[in-house]
Amino acid sequence: MKKLIYLFSFLILLSCSGNQGDSTLEATLSTGQIVEEQGPITLVIHGGAGTITRDAMSADMESEYRAKLSESLNAGYQVLENGGSSLDAIIEAIQVLEESPLFNAGKGAVFTHEGRNELDASIMDGKTGMAGAIAGVSNIKSPISAARAVMENSPHVMMSGQGAEQFALEQGLEIVEPDYFHTDKRYQQLQDVLEKENNEGTSAYLYENPDRKFSTVGAIALDKDGNIAAGTSTGGMTNKRYGRIGDSPIIGAGTYADNTTCGVSSTGHGEFFIRNIVAYDIAALMKYKNMSLNDAAEEVVNNKLAAINGSGGIVSLDRAGNVAMKFNTEGMYRGYINEKGSPQVFIYKD
Amino acid sequence: MKKLIYLFSFLILLSCSGNQGDSTLEATLSTGQIVEEQGPITLVIHGGAGTITRDAMSADMESEYRAKLSESLNAGYQVLENGGSSLDAIIEAIQVLEESPLFNAGKGAVFTHEGRNELDASIMDGKTGMAGAIAGVSNIKSPISAARAVMENSPHVMMSGQGAEQFALEQGLEIVEPDYFHTDKRYQQLQDVLEKENNEGTSAYLYENPDRKFSTVGAIALDKDGNIAAGTSTGGMTNKRYGRIGDSPIIGAGTYADNTTCGVSSTGHGEFFIRNIVAYDIAALMKYKNMSLNDAAEEVVNNKLAAINGSGGIVSLDRAGNVAMKFNTEGMYRGYINEKGSPQVFIYKD
Repeated sequence: MKKLIYLFSFLILLSCSGNQGDSTLEATLSTGQIVEEQGPITLVIHGGAGTITRDAMSADMESEYRAKLSESLNAGYQVLENGGSSLDAIIEAIQVLEESPLFNAGKGAVFTHEGRNELDASIMDGKTGMAGAIAGVSNIKSPISAARAVMENSPHVMMSGQGAEQFALEQGLEIVEPDYFHTDKRYQQLQDVLEKENNEGTSAYLYENPDRKFSTVGAIALDKDGNIAAGTSTGGMTNKRYGRIGDSPIIGAGTYADNTTCGVSSTGHGEFFIRNIVAYDIAALMKYKNMSLNDAAEEVVNNKLAAINGSGGIVSLDRAGNVAMKFNTEGMYRGYINEKGSPQVFIYKD
Repeated sequence: MKKLIYLFSFLILLSCSGNQGDSTLEATLSTGQIVEEQGPITLVIHGGAGTITRDAMSADMESEYRAKLSESLNAGYQVLENGGSSLDAIIEAIQVLEESPLFNAGKGAVFTHEGRNELDASIMDGKTGMAGAIAGVSNIKSPISAARAVMENSPHVMMSGQGAEQFALEQGLEIVEPDYFHTDKRYQQLQDVLEKENNEGTSAYLYENPDRKFSTVGAIALDKDGNIAAGTSTGGMTNKRYGRIGDSPIIGAGTYADNTTCGVSSTGHGEFFIRNIVAYDIAALMKYKNMSLNDAAEEVVNNKLAAINGSGGIVSLDRAGNVAMKFNTEGMYRGYINEKGSPQVFIYKD
């Protein structure tokens, strides 16, 4: 009986999937069933989605982004190649991005309304279903490593503010002065927004950045043992106020991983991603509707989210090594690697 | 084709659902399809799940709990009866519980390790898909009303700490001195835990309360227009540290509402509820597997959560007026009302 239903589901999926615009790597899975066979070690990353166009990007800047994404992919892949775990690989890949001022995470974090940097991160282990997250921290050099410490060394999933900073200190994580996160470029972005607010009388917290860049970073890896791990790290929104928490530290919204379905890391207009439980919804469509990773990710990002103007994207990976990188914005910094020395990096739609 | 699949799903559901232990009101829906027909105005609430046994409860205490749960149900139902919205009804019902020292929310909030009260709450509107949440606030009299203000008067879903308090102040919500939340009973509970920690050398943050009461409160309503709203409010865990955030303010874990499936409010060991995206998972099983509310709630609470020792429960409601109140603990303060003057209140398993 079950098989019959799978078959019918498959036929329905087939009949719907003919003309969907696809801005991603094609998934090879097409059976409509949850994957059993394990794929090669693979790492997929993103560095944020938004209004990223060729016209607005200098050749030098594009090279910088491509080089840093490749560096991140190579660093994480080396961990996998040496037999390391998917958790170790994503930490390595994300830390390369956190330490770069190019991306809105760690060193390159955007500024809050009050001129601070408040960082969020989360991580999930698809083998055990354990997870960790931190929100609103200002002095932890690597937020993703703090999320991992919460997962592995506390009974909690989520810690916030000064309490989370205290925990990180006790855990021996690297603590920095808050101005470690100061970059002139990000500070100027805040000043531009504040000036605009001032001139236009826009209520501060209703202000939306016109270029709508959601430059969170994230990574998902599949290791030699078939374990999937996913992680996300961000500085949040420029000019955020009121201790706003976005989707990045929310398990099920910004990050999700389960060996039996997939790992997902989100980047986008966080409020939409929280309300639509984006990361878990992709896994739920695979688990409950027997969709392929590609179809599930397409459905959530380009049908459900796009229909309500929920801007952003996701990168994801399943146990067969299928990669889906979906976004409904003009671009998304992204890439994957499943073969030594061959990181595949993309920025625009085509 | 779709109908055929629904039929098969129905047959499968029937064949599996014969001998499940059921600690709830029986759901009347049995077609295995998402409900189309609108039920009567209904309100369902909970006041927390845990080791609640007849042996440990005095007759007086039981009467107090029953009276307060009935008062909450009557207050919320009156809103619905007067043609009010499901959002207004759950606010009314939850505020009765927040203002009572009996429940771990608002006035009766438990204490953190540092001897503070840090409150969390969230709300979701099943008609619009909008949501609001606050985490770690210490001076907002009604946390659920602050969650609603975040939903209705800001572009954000989640605010935390002093930023959330500042927002509530600007919104004109009632601000109280932090010691408004001090009750001797809860303070003594913290002292007992601290003493035990001290004597047994248990690491503070690894300590688990032996009586395992998760006395969050929550409510879901269905109004005359067929709109579902859900809300949850809590003081969190006694002796919590490090700015720990549980599931109550997490959309998809502690609270979820969607007119096309159901509304859910959770109470339990929050970390398990976050990792398993409990509230949304029930809706996902209805939406993607055509399960009834009763079967979906049973699957999540008494199969999935119980299998990993994820203690707690949920109350839920669908558009047909079906109520499911599921828990895998010894008791859960709970009740529903769908007829004037007849609140139905329960505490134990039977």
